[in-house]
Amino acid sequence: MSVPQAFYDYIDSHESQFIQRLADAVAIPSVSADAEHRKDVIAMGKYLQKQLQDLGVEVRMADVGRQVVDGQDLPLPPVILGKFGSDPKKKTVQLYAHYDVQPALLSDGWNTDPFKLTHDGQTGRLYGRGASDDKGPLLGWLNVLEAHVKGGLELPVNLRFCFEGMEESGSEGLDELIESEVGPGKFFEGVDCVCISDNYWLNDRTPCITYGLRGITYYKLTVSGPGRDLHSGVFGNMVHEPLVDLVHLMAKLISPQGEILVPGIAELVAPLTEEERKRYDKLDYSVQDVESAVGAAVARSDDKSELLMGRMRYPSLSLHGIEGAFSAPGAKTVIPACVHGKFSLRLVPNLTPENVDGLVIKYLKDEFAKLDSKNTLNVESLHGGKPWIADPNHWNYVAAIKATETIYKVSPDLTREGGSIPVTLTFAETLGVNVLLLPMGRGDDGAHSTNEKLDKSNYIQGTKLLGTYLYEVAANAT
Amino acid sequence: MSVPQAFYDYIDSHESQFIQRLADAVAIPSVSADAEHRKDVIAMGKYLQKQLQDLGVEVRMADVGRQVVDGQDLPLPPVILGKFGSDPKKKTVQLYAHYDVQPALLSDGWNTDPFKLTHDGQTGRLYGRGASDDKGPLLGWLNVLEAHVKGGLELPVNLRFCFEGMEESGSEGLDELIESEVGPGKFFEGVDCVCISDNYWLNDRTPCITYGLRGITYYKLTVSGPGRDLHSGVFGNMVHEPLVDLVHLMAKLISPQGEILVPGIAELVAPLTEEERKRYDKLDYSVQDVESAVGAAVARSDDKSELLMGRMRYPSLSLHGIEGAFSAPGAKTVIPACVHGKFSLRLVPNLTPENVDGLVIKYLKDEFAKLDSKNTLNVESLHGGKPWIADPNHWNYVAAIKATETIYKVSPDLTREGGSIPVTLTFAETLGVNVLLLPMGRGDDGAHSTNEKLDKSNYIQGTKLLGTYLYEVAANAT
Ligand SMILES: [Zn+2]
Ligand SMILES: [Zn+2]
Ligand SMILES: [Zn+2]
Ligand SMILES: [Zn+2]
Repeated sequence: MSVPQAFYDYIDSHESQFIQRLADAVAIPSVSADAEHRKDVIAMGKYLQKQLQDLGVEVRMADVGRQVVDGQDLPLPPVILGKFGSDPKKKTVQLYAHYDVQPALLSDGWNTDPFKLTHDGQTGRLYGRGASDDKGPLLGWLNVLEAHVKGGLELPVNLRFCFEGMEESGSEGLDELIESEVGPGKFFEGVDCVCISDNYWLNDRTPCITYGLRGITYYKLTVSGPGRDLHSGVFGNMVHEPLVDLVHLMAKLISPQGEILVPGIAELVAPLTEEERKRYDKLDYSVQDVESAVGAAVARSDDKSELLMGRMRYPSLSLHGIEGAFSAPGAKTVIPACVHGKFSLRLVPNLTPENVDGLVIKYLKDEFAKLDSKNTLNVESLHGGKPWIADPNHWNYVAAIKATETIYKVSPDLTREGGSIPVTLTFAETLGVNVLLLPMGRGDDGAHSTNEKLDKSNYIQGTKLLGTYLYEVAANAT
Repeated sequence: MSVPQAFYDYIDSHESQFIQRLADAVAIPSVSADAEHRKDVIAMGKYLQKQLQDLGVEVRMADVGRQVVDGQDLPLPPVILGKFGSDPKKKTVQLYAHYDVQPALLSDGWNTDPFKLTHDGQTGRLYGRGASDDKGPLLGWLNVLEAHVKGGLELPVNLRFCFEGMEESGSEGLDELIESEVGPGKFFEGVDCVCISDNYWLNDRTPCITYGLRGITYYKLTVSGPGRDLHSGVFGNMVHEPLVDLVHLMAKLISPQGEILVPGIAELVAPLTEEERKRYDKLDYSVQDVESAVGAAVARSDDKSELLMGRMRYPSLSLHGIEGAFSAPGAKTVIPACVHGKFSLRLVPNLTPENVDGLVIKYLKDEFAKLDSKNTLNVESLHGGKPWIADPNHWNYVAAIKATETIYKVSPDLTREGGSIPVTLTFAETLGVNVLLLPMGRGDDGAHSTNEKLDKSNYIQGTKLLGTYLYEVAANAT
């Protein structure tokens, strides 16, 4: 089924209305991490409920319970479950996006009010919190639906919507809801594939489609000794200092060149095939891309493919900080009594929290014993999640690739990402269907940062891409 | 000249008045670190000015300028310079104490209001902020003076008072004032010796006299790389992480057994003589003393003398913390862009900031070069002070030893301390006379901690000790 020209025409002729829709959404400060803004997250959900209902979607606002934040007992924002179409001859595509955003204050360094969408006519950029993460992509689906409903076009697939309001704050309640809605007569029955639009191109030039995400396991490494903080004048050189032990242990986790020093981890990683290596060589990326993204010439390698594999297909171990030691500006002569080192390991196939945690904990205990300290060690994993990888040869990916080629006239980069989006794995495992990440924005959008933006062309062409993808699903699904 | 019995009788018969004097002083919350309490520090100075003047002391409230704290431009509390007696046939003793205190809040874990002196009748302890550090010792001198003036006794020496209100906050302005008051016709002219009462016994049993203090040099070790904090999912394994470099460098400073790994430091330390070693063996101290003081069995050695030398006559290197990394509770997946390691080295003869800083900085630069990182290193010394050591055979010490034997019926421990009291070195160097540290309180008083106390017996017997010391100066000075 080819895409009707009337669809593209509708998008082009409604550009300013679609930008206004994004402006209206950005104006609702739906910050899920902030108890004061919980009412705005809920208002954002209601705003979407009405828009979906006006377009004929059968909407259920799923209550996923309550949570305590900063001592306040708050309702969780509802998960919006929507149905549009039930034609048994059509494929059913499950869509996911989130309507909450990261915190943002003008005083953080924004050039414009983060909750007022600002269109820079010269660059075509639309600045505002959530423009790219994830209100723009979410509204892209509404734009596609409107173009069909109001433009008198028939959608080539059945749609199922799952829009949550807690993604930036741990997706509280989502996994349980999804698991409870799987089975005969339940919401997710009949879903053929999943499309998640909540990530970005690898760079600012080339569209990409993402088929893998790293998992994570996050550790807290505690060394304690004295019963209270001590003065280094009085007790320096008299006692075993916990921070000295901790720093020695943390240095044994990772080399300055990035080599993970925990035995057994490297051996578990799925071996690199020649075909896979070539896939990285083909990606549109350079050492300069990473160095301009991080703002300094600190890339660990001069080889673009090595760098990309470092992010996408190898584990990484990062040290995040130390809790309990002196961390303020100035000079304090304390010997901290109890310190907690924080570090995490990003997981790739075939690393899981289950097969990695034991290796990490045993290694740290062995190394601590070698220190011959009278202090006490404790190691715990604070949270963990498995890596996710999909088959990029599945018809769901074929559809997305073809749609991208139609809209952007280039082959998309096939990427894996270094971070994790836990719902991806939940959908893959509970629904048992192929899951696809189809990004709308660019790598320099600054999601989670100040001056987040979405290029107008990414919003408008991205809306066309999402619609085209649905036609390609209908055409390619087997 | 023997001590008149009337002096001791006056002290004994005025015990309750002297305790009330301490209660009145503790009730003034003279916290020098807190801008809100600056007015109270100044009120404390005025309170002392009146008491000294009422006893016939010629007082000058020396203005030492202003300072900016928390954005507020504040006056520094005056240094109280007092003269009592100018008999050329008598020795002139310079006294030093401070009238400011450490911060204290009931909510820090105090059992009683820190600014209300609380007398525990069972234990004889007087609880309150500043009771031991340093209002008790300071008022001890007022008690001695009152016993003579109101008891109709003649003091055996001329007295000079120097009471400051900024000791707990860097003694701002004090060094410059002392230096400006040295010379013919100036305040410090004619001073024969200095007595500082601002430290504690080594334990809770045996009086001590202190003839040495360690110096310090405090370092800030900065590793910077990326232009901003990064997400470890996106950039883990792509860039050189500053915190990884920093942890490797900090681990190269000190072994878990306390060995300083910076080459050249150990060689500079004055060699241990057999006689000196014996002096440590004689001190009333045990491994259990350090372990009960720190609240855990984490002493670095099973040999009491090794532990004491670790504090008193060897340098120590302590790691204090890291600024710029993730230091809060919880799990954040940040790669910090710029981190500052804080550590300090306690100095003993013959280590000085001048001969040590170069060794430390060169070593860290050499070790950083070996890491082969693309990040940037900077090392700076934030502040430094030389160690101080006095001749414990000087008549000033003989006087203090005899006075202690008279009051406590035991020979005092001759100790060196691990911390620094910078004014000690200033007096020694600018006045060129012997300086003595004569403590009033015990090692378990908890200065700078919650539930600070001074035993009533230490306050009353300590007052007698201070007075007796003045008579022994008159008898022993040459
Ligand atoms: Zn997102
Ligand atoms: Zn996000
Ligand atoms: Zn003090
Ligand atoms: Zn103090």
